Amino acid sequence: MTREECLKRDQTDELRHFRDRYAIPRGMIYLDGNSLGLMPRAVPERVAHAVSVQWAEDLITSWNKHGWFHLPRVAGNKIARLIGAATDSVIVADTISVNLFKVLSAALALRRGRKVILSDSGNFPSDLYVAQGLNRFLADGHSLKAVAPEDVLDAISTDVAVVMVTEVDYRTARRHDMKAIVTKAHAQGALVIWDLAHSAGAIPVDLMGADCDFAIGCTYKYINGGPGSPAFVFVHPRLQNEAEPALVGWWGHANPFAFSPEWQPASGMVRQQCGTQAMLSMVALDAALDTWADADMQKLHAKSKDLCGLFIALVEERCARHGLKLAGPRDFAARGSHVSFHCPEGYAVMQALIAAGVVGDFRAPDLIRFGFAPLYNSFTETFDAAETLGHILDTRSWNRPEFLAKKSVT
Amino acid sequence: MTREECLKRDQTDELRHFRDRYAIPRGMIYLDGNSLGLMPRAVPERVAHAVSVQWAEDLITSWNKHGWFHLPRVAGNKIARLIGAATDSVIVADTISVNLFKVLSAALALRRGRKVILSDSGNFPSDLYVAQGLNRFLADGHSLKAVAPEDVLDAISTDVAVVMVTEVDYRTARRHDMKAIVTKAHAQGALVIWDLAHSAGAIPVDLMGADCDFAIGCTYKYINGGPGSPAFVFVHPRLQNEAEPALVGWWGHANPFAFSPEWQPASGMVRQQCGTQAMLSMVALDAALDTWADADMQKLHAKSKDLCGLFIALVEERCARHGLKLAGPRDFAARGSHVSFHCPEGYAVMQALIAAGVVGDFRAPDLIRFGFAPLYNSFTETFDAAETLGHILDTRSWNRPEFLAKKSVT
Repeated sequence: MTREECLKRDQTDELRHFRDRYAIPRGMIYLDGNSLGLMPRAVPERVAHAVSVQWAEDLITSWNKHGWFHLPRVAGNKIARLIGAATDSVIVADTISVNLFKVLSAALALRRGRKVILSDSGNFPSDLYVAQGLNRFLADGHSLKAVAPEDVLDAISTDVAVVMVTEVDYRTARRHDMKAIVTKAHAQGALVIWDLAHSAGAIPVDLMGADCDFAIGCTYKYINGGPGSPAFVFVHPRLQNEAEPALVGWWGHANPFAFSPEWQPASGMVRQQCGTQAMLSMVALDAALDTWADADMQKLHAKSKDLCGLFIALVEERCARHGLKLAGPRDFAARGSHVSFHCPEGYAVMQALIAAGVVGDFRAPDLIRFGFAPLYNSFTETFDAAETLGHILDTRSWNRPEFLAKKSVT
Repeated sequence: MTREECLKRDQTDELRHFRDRYAIPRGMIYLDGNSLGLMPRAVPERVAHAVSVQWAEDLITSWNKHGWFHLPRVAGNKIARLIGAATDSVIVADTISVNLFKVLSAALALRRGRKVILSDSGNFPSDLYVAQGLNRFLADGHSLKAVAPEDVLDAISTDVAVVMVTEVDYRTARRHDMKAIVTKAHAQGALVIWDLAHSAGAIPVDLMGADCDFAIGCTYKYINGGPGSPAFVFVHPRLQNEAEPALVGWWGHANPFAFSPEWQPASGMVRQQCGTQAMLSMVALDAALDTWADADMQKLHAKSKDLCGLFIALVEERCARHGLKLAGPRDFAARGSHVSFHCPEGYAVMQALIAAGVVGDFRAPDLIRFGFAPLYNSFTETFDAAETLGHILDTRSWNRPEFLAKKSVT
């Protein structure tokens, strides 16, 4: 595909109008929406209203008047549509790690006799840490077994209490077969928790169709909810009144304003709420979710595959002599919406790319990673990104001290 | 004190300039800053910048460029000054219930042989729920013992793993003797967790002076951080590298961007962080905390006592024949910064008060509650609030269907 063909493709893209809903920094090709999504243009006004009217003027009455009480459920239902969840089976609250802790503890409590949490070595480390922290606290023989991603299915046995996996690998974009894992797990009496961090808003997910038990996800990536925007949690309707997290609080009580000293869980998803939520961030997320109201995940997925496919083809052709190697499978049914290449001197190459206005990121040890958000990324951007990468590799312009020096973030 | 004397007192109040830093709705006397504090005028600009520049333009580079990575620690140190905590012994993250869960689980892990969590029946119910949820999950004989507030000291025995109490009772304003409880607990080998929800920013707290082990608190009350603004957690420096919460995540890892599959806790307070924080709400809180930079908690406390004392005296005089009865002790050394009265038909009375522009709140079964935020409440407001309450009681203007009908919030 030539650049001209990409321009034409963008002009006839039926999803093109979505791009206009986002603030796109001038001169930047942003391929890091899988880390922090672009700002929807509707957000500033909504947040300003939440600050200067809802908080400043209406104060505590805003809990009713401006619907703060219901926002976790309202936003949850907007997400439910994107991930194939039933109405009122998703709520927004806390962070993805906190939500994982809730459903992991609830799942373990439902499988008291079993001591194994099964995951894979490609899972996002924080998910593994959540399980390790819980196991260490329990100190009763619970263990985390992390096998290679392709070995998860075979490792599901009757010892396993919970299978805890991320659908799309944050590095390789490898995608698990959701239906196969759930089917096997249920046959062996295990429950399954899906981390949808790199799925929600990127690829179609069918939680109900695959009969999933639990899922969690973040909203600051493809959903574009803003920096650290609150996360979501899904519990299958059949488990909602059985699942009791170890972490509970008054927002999950059957009658929070009775201020009863005894815990009594609310029915449904409400019990997965715990404390008072960061409402300014919640409002920004809710505004971002409105941008999705007319989005069709199937069409977005088709575009995602086309963008990723184009990028892979262009990079493999343009950069053939530089030793880049695609991470993850080639089959688009088995991939998410980002593309990573093993790349010698990948860290410096990515710094040079960013300096040239193409923003992706680097994941140790050697991956340069590019997220393709089908809502706003274009074919021309994809072409230009590949061209810029090729130029940087050809000219070795990454080989400069400011690109080679790794920045510390903590 | 007459209204004219109150006006004079406000004119000579050396803390008067603080009031100008807050947005005060026209015609409203806001005595609910112990539920949701007023908006500091500095907030809208800071939040707008976080949305439209930091997020929209600088995107992921904001983690470094705009200090997002460090905000939990930076904001934590601003709070530390208000509660007598050492530098780098407070971080801001998550909600108060989630933070309680972290330190409660850490404390239980440090006292494995002991099975009793001691609290009091006046504790905020969510704190009790957190302990109950954890105990139920553990299912190994841990129990919550909630005694009357005045019996906590005597109930501390060598069975007790953790004393978990809220310093200032959310209903009665009764204040625990922090030093006495910590001293007795340590003598019995127990740890102590303080909930400072109704203390931080209202009364001076001396966590280091009282040798406290753990504390948690929220920031949307007297600190004025905004609706659901993130909470804080304190761990005494001697325990920071020992305390291991059951709930951990990558933000608490010694080297989060190494993406190691093995959990390794960071040293110090960092391990109390878990997932990515709601940054827009965090920025609002940080702006609110700047308002406190030149605040002296001793001076604020003196004013708090004067405001509360004035209100109690005026109400008891003005409303003598209406059966109101002060909740909590009269000794101001044993009180926080809110005042509650048992009041027949209290719910309707509070609704009538709110309709008349005096905003407090109602707490079941019969308390009308008024928070006095010494940063912005005035003596004249206090006088007018008591006068309005007296008028409503005298005229029985609360006896109307719209005030009597209890609103549901969920």
